[in-house]
Amino acid sequence: MEVVEPVCLPRLPRVVLCGGTHGNELSGVYLIRDLLKEVQQKEMEDDGLMSVLMVLSNPWAIQQCRRYVDTDLNRCFSHATLSGPVSDTAPYEIIWARELNAMLGPKGSPGAVDLVCDLHNTTANMGLCFIAYSDNDWICLHIFKHLQRQMPEMPMRFIHFDVSKKESYSLDSVGKHGFALEIGPQPHGVVRSNIYTAMKVGVQHILDWIRHFNSGAVSEGGYVDVFTMVKNIDYPRDSQTHNITAAIHPHLQDRDFCLLHPEDPLFRTFSGEDLTYKGNEPLYPFFINECSYYEKGIALSLARKKRVMIPPIRARTEEKQASERPCASEED
Amino acid sequence: MEVVEPVCLPRLPRVVLCGGTHGNELSGVYLIRDLLKEVQQKEMEDDGLMSVLMVLSNPWAIQQCRRYVDTDLNRCFSHATLSGPVSDTAPYEIIWARELNAMLGPKGSPGAVDLVCDLHNTTANMGLCFIAYSDNDWICLHIFKHLQRQMPEMPMRFIHFDVSKKESYSLDSVGKHGFALEIGPQPHGVVRSNIYTAMKVGVQHILDWIRHFNSGAVSEGGYVDVFTMVKNIDYPRDSQTHNITAAIHPHLQDRDFCLLHPEDPLFRTFSGEDLTYKGNEPLYPFFINECSYYEKGIALSLARKKRVMIPPIRARTEEKQASERPCASEED
Repeated sequence: MEVVEPVCLPRLPRVVLCGGTHGNELSGVYLIRDLLKEVQQKEMEDDGLMSVLMVLSNPWAIQQCRRYVDTDLNRCFSHATLSGPVSDTAPYEIIWARELNAMLGPKGSPGAVDLVCDLHNTTANMGLCFIAYSDNDWICLHIFKHLQRQMPEMPMRFIHFDVSKKESYSLDSVGKHGFALEIGPQPHGVVRSNIYTAMKVGVQHILDWIRHFNSGAVSEGGYVDVFTMVKNIDYPRDSQTHNITAAIHPHLQDRDFCLLHPEDPLFRTFSGEDLTYKGNEPLYPFFINECSYYEKGIALSLARKKRVMIPPIRARTEEKQASERPCASEED
Repeated sequence: MEVVEPVCLPRLPRVVLCGGTHGNELSGVYLIRDLLKEVQQKEMEDDGLMSVLMVLSNPWAIQQCRRYVDTDLNRCFSHATLSGPVSDTAPYEIIWARELNAMLGPKGSPGAVDLVCDLHNTTANMGLCFIAYSDNDWICLHIFKHLQRQMPEMPMRFIHFDVSKKESYSLDSVGKHGFALEIGPQPHGVVRSNIYTAMKVGVQHILDWIRHFNSGAVSEGGYVDVFTMVKNIDYPRDSQTHNITAAIHPHLQDRDFCLLHPEDPLFRTFSGEDLTYKGNEPLYPFFINECSYYEKGIALSLARKKRVMIPPIRARTEEKQASERPCASEED
């Protein structure tokens, strides 16, 4: 029997939890507020293995309970947007993204924090999802696998947006590792206790895993199903007014991650006509009828599923790093 | 066997359907748009029995997909707000409410339209509700009873806000008769096809009944269960920040109109503590976790249920009005 050597990866001493990147996605807003209240009593969490920084990422939008004030903050972290020219009259979020990047990054630099977990909600029936830009970031995939094991009752998927690190645009891309933790369904501007609790439990398991990893323990390898985003589909729209002319078909509504086949019903127009999916291959729909994507021209997204093998990993300890090389290493 | 004479009531020749009084409650917005599109092709609906005017009530809020721009339009139609002093710098909705009142009212005057049906959505699991200021407006109660018969599969309730005509504050109070047609659950800013269809079918049945009534036919009497609003309950809040510190308890969430007993769970705090209902009597909860009521300090409303007997009614025809009095009359 072949024994696979654990891949050695740098420890994750600086972890950041963000909520309220979208000010009306309330699970993260209230979870971060609650954790901050605990911190005031317990001091900053730093047990020698890691420090956790809690951030309410878009305070002005949170105050107004809106997704954003001027523009979507979670699209402002691409290299181009962070480094382009900016004036005093630039959208608030463009300016604020640079502040966050200075605090948590700079993106792509050795000084960037080790991991950013950004908390989100969706009106789509997606359960708990990780959204990441890589399908081979063993840290993110191991954390996901750990959550799957710890919360077997929770529908859980790993979504991969195939975008380069440079072009990646969301807040979590500022960290050396990062992902969005997306939970739904929940209307924006509402807190549902079950969704809040799922996020709270998920975050505790994430921090537990990082502590375990930082301690030097081995995390066993295995498999993760990864949903790689292929394309978006917009609503049918009136050519003159650009208003939508149909809603998600009732047979498709709430069926995120149920395979959509060619000719399956996709939309029902407001006058009652059914429209079907005209693609060539069956794909997995997600973000079905997400509120905030009406303005982005996205009625749903479609993904291809694949199984990714992840190796066992463990943290490279400083002593071992200096003297011996007992395990495979990826990043030297 | 006693035969109950039908109560004679004035016909309802001028009917108004409103959508988008709250700009992010999308079923009404898209239904009115769709009906207006039909009207452009078919001429204004006026078959001699009635005319139907379709109104998108808060165009600026609709454009921004927000509940309102400056203040809640659907709280601007009390006598005091409509007749008080107003400057050019008054909130947009205060000024706009006067325009609507001039067009559809004036409220309380003989020139007011006969019936206003104002279309709304809620994030609460309320099914289809009528919300009215009277528990003895036979027109509204008969329309409700008609809908119950026509849509037996749809959970349906009649909610009574016990407020005087003068103090009534919502757009539907501008008509001689009026009610809000509230359907949920649906996140604001989202259209769900099943909710849209329920509203569309409901509106068709409402118009059918009015046409039937205006034709002079008798509508049989019967009973309607009326939920009279007793009080609102706010979320627990932090005394300093005024932020909420708990969500609706998972056992109560989505259980609108299921009797709430003293000591039943009401909230779960963000740190995990359960809080119970401290009232003295069992009451019916509704608007549980309605998104827009966070800012109004309402986590849920509570109602008492009673059964109201409604008499048979028919329209007073002009000939009969002039010569004979074949049936009981209420309004002379």
